[in-house]
Amino acid sequence: MILTITPNPAIDLTYRVAGLQPGGSHRVDAPLSRAGGKGINVARVLAAQGVESRIIATVGGESGRELEQELAAAELPRRLIRVQAATRRSIALVDELGGQTSIFNERGLALEIAEWQALAEAIADELQDAELVVASGSLPTGAPADFYPGVVALAKQAGVPAIIDTSGAGLLSAASAGAALLKPNREELLEATGEHELAAGARVLLRLGARRVLVSDGERGMLAFAAGTEGHLSARLPEALAGNPTGAGDAAVAGAAVVLASGEQSLEPLLRRAAAWGSAAVLMPAAGEISERWRELESTLILEEHFSCH
Amino acid sequence: MILTITPNPAIDLTYRVAGLQPGGSHRVDAPLSRAGGKGINVARVLAAQGVESRIIATVGGESGRELEQELAAAELPRRLIRVQAATRRSIALVDELGGQTSIFNERGLALEIAEWQALAEAIADELQDAELVVASGSLPTGAPADFYPGVVALAKQAGVPAIIDTSGAGLLSAASAGAALLKPNREELLEATGEHELAAGARVLLRLGARRVLVSDGERGMLAFAAGTEGHLSARLPEALAGNPTGAGDAAVAGAAVVLASGEQSLEPLLRRAAAWGSAAVLMPAAGEISERWRELESTLILEEHFSCH
Repeated sequence: MILTITPNPAIDLTYRVAGLQPGGSHRVDAPLSRAGGKGINVARVLAAQGVESRIIATVGGESGRELEQELAAAELPRRLIRVQAATRRSIALVDELGGQTSIFNERGLALEIAEWQALAEAIADELQDAELVVASGSLPTGAPADFYPGVVALAKQAGVPAIIDTSGAGLLSAASAGAALLKPNREELLEATGEHELAAGARVLLRLGARRVLVSDGERGMLAFAAGTEGHLSARLPEALAGNPTGAGDAAVAGAAVVLASGEQSLEPLLRRAAAWGSAAVLMPAAGEISERWRELESTLILEEHFSCH
Repeated sequence: MILTITPNPAIDLTYRVAGLQPGGSHRVDAPLSRAGGKGINVARVLAAQGVESRIIATVGGESGRELEQELAAAELPRRLIRVQAATRRSIALVDELGGQTSIFNERGLALEIAEWQALAEAIADELQDAELVVASGSLPTGAPADFYPGVVALAKQAGVPAIIDTSGAGLLSAASAGAALLKPNREELLEATGEHELAAGARVLLRLGARRVLVSDGERGMLAFAAGTEGHLSARLPEALAGNPTGAGDAAVAGAAVVLASGEQSLEPLLRRAAAWGSAAVLMPAAGEISERWRELESTLILEEHFSCH
C-alpha cells in the first residue's frame, strides 16, 4: 500500500465564466466541486491504475464534510483527521471567452498542537502497512517547521521510503532528513536552493541528504539525480503535448512512487514512469487523472545521460 | 412580526486579493463567509433596529448547513426549509490594489415540486402571525413563474401587505397580483417594463395592479409612486455619500417595511424612511447593516413633489 499525506487539502471549485471582467458582476452556474490537494491527486492516479493506496488528510468545517463526501463517493481509501479549522477552498475561474484561468488558493487555517500530534500518530500508525509514503503540497498557516522532515523520520523508523513534494524551506529540511525522493519543479528548486541551474540546485539537495531528486521542467521534460553518482538522466517527449498541465507533477510523483515501492533501485525506470505519467496527465481535463495512452508515451520518451564536467 | 422570504439564498464569500490578475494564480486568506440573499439582508437590518422579524429560506447541502449555522450564530429568528440542492455561493473578490470588486453569483440549483410546495406551506403558516411580508431576490433555476404572485395572493388571503423586490418577469407578475409595494432599481424597472423613463416604467407597474412603487436610482436618490394618484415624490441627500452600495436596496426595503407594517398609508414617511435607511447602508462595510447616523440623514433629505404633465 502507498500512503499519501495531504496536510493542507482543499475543496477545488471550478467556475466557467463567459468573459471575466475585473470589477464586474457575473452570473455563473454551480461549480464543479472536487476534493483537491496534491496528495489526494496522487492517490486518485494510483487508484485509477489499480495501485493500492491510502489517503491521510485533515478535514474541518462544512467544506471538510464536502471533501469527505467527495472522497467517499470516489471510493478512495482514506483516514481523515477531524480538525477545528474549516478546510480551505481553491477557486478556479475558467474564462471561456478569454481562454485563461484565474486561480485563488486559500492559504489554509492553522491547526492546533493536539491536531498536529493526531496527524503524526495517524501517519506512524498507517506506515506499519505501507510500502512507501508520499507527502505533498503546502502546509497550513503556522505549521511546525519540522513537519516534512518528521514524516521522513517516521518513515525511516518504519523502514519505508518517503517521497516529499513541496517547496521552500520544507524542501531543504526534507532533504536534510534523508528523503528517498524529492520532486521540485524548476522554479521551486532554484528558489529554495538559490542556485541558477537545475543540476546545481539538485546537487545541493543531494549534498544535504536526499537520496534522489526528480526535477520537472514543464514542456522540456524531467531530470533525475541520485546520491553517490555523477551526472544525471533526462527524459523528454519528441514533441510537447498540448493540454492541461494542472496535476501533471502529481501524476509524475505517482509514477515514481509505484516504481520505488516495487523495490527498484535504479534511476532510469523511475524517471521513465514518472515522465510518462506526468505527460499522460496533460492530456486529461482534471488533476488526478492520466490518459490510457501513457504506455505509448513511455515508449516514445527520449532518455539521455548527462555527465558532469568536474 | 415582519416575515422575509428568500427563495434563493446564498453563502456570500468575500476574498481580499492583493492585485487581481486575470489568468494569474493568487494566494488568499480565508474569506469572510456570511449568509446572504436579499431577504436575509432585510431581516438583518430589521433585527439590528429592534424590529421583530422572521426569515423563511431554503437550505441544502453543506453550504446550506453553513448558512444555517451563520443565521443561528446571528440569532436571527428563522424557518428553514431543507431541500436537496446545495445552497448556492456568491463570491466577491475585493481587489485591494485596484480598488474594485468582482462578483460571481451562482444561479441557484432547481428545487423539486414538493420542495416548492413545502416552501408555500411554510409561508402560508407564518403569514398567520405576520404584519407584513417581504419577498426578495432572484429565483432558483426552473422556479415556477407564479412564485412571487403566489406570495402576494397568500398575503392577501391573510390580510397582510406584501413587498416584492425582484426583477424581470417576476416584477410584472407581482404587480399584476396587486403587491402593496414593488422596489426595482433603475435598470430593473426599465428592463422589465421596456420604458425609457422611470416615471413611465413605474406607471406601467401601477396600471398592472401594484399599490406602490419605490424606485432606487443610486446616488440620485429614490422615487415613490402610488396607485390612484398623479405625480410622484422624490428624495435625495444634499450630497452623495461615499461608501459601499451593496445591500442599500435591502436596507431601503426594510425601512419601507417598517412604515407600511405600522399601518401608515401615505407615501411620504415611507419614502423618507426607505431613503434614510438605504443611505445609511452605504456607510457600512457589509450588506445587512445600517449606520446609526440614519436619523441625522433622514432629517437632511430633500423631498420634492413632482406633478405629471398630462
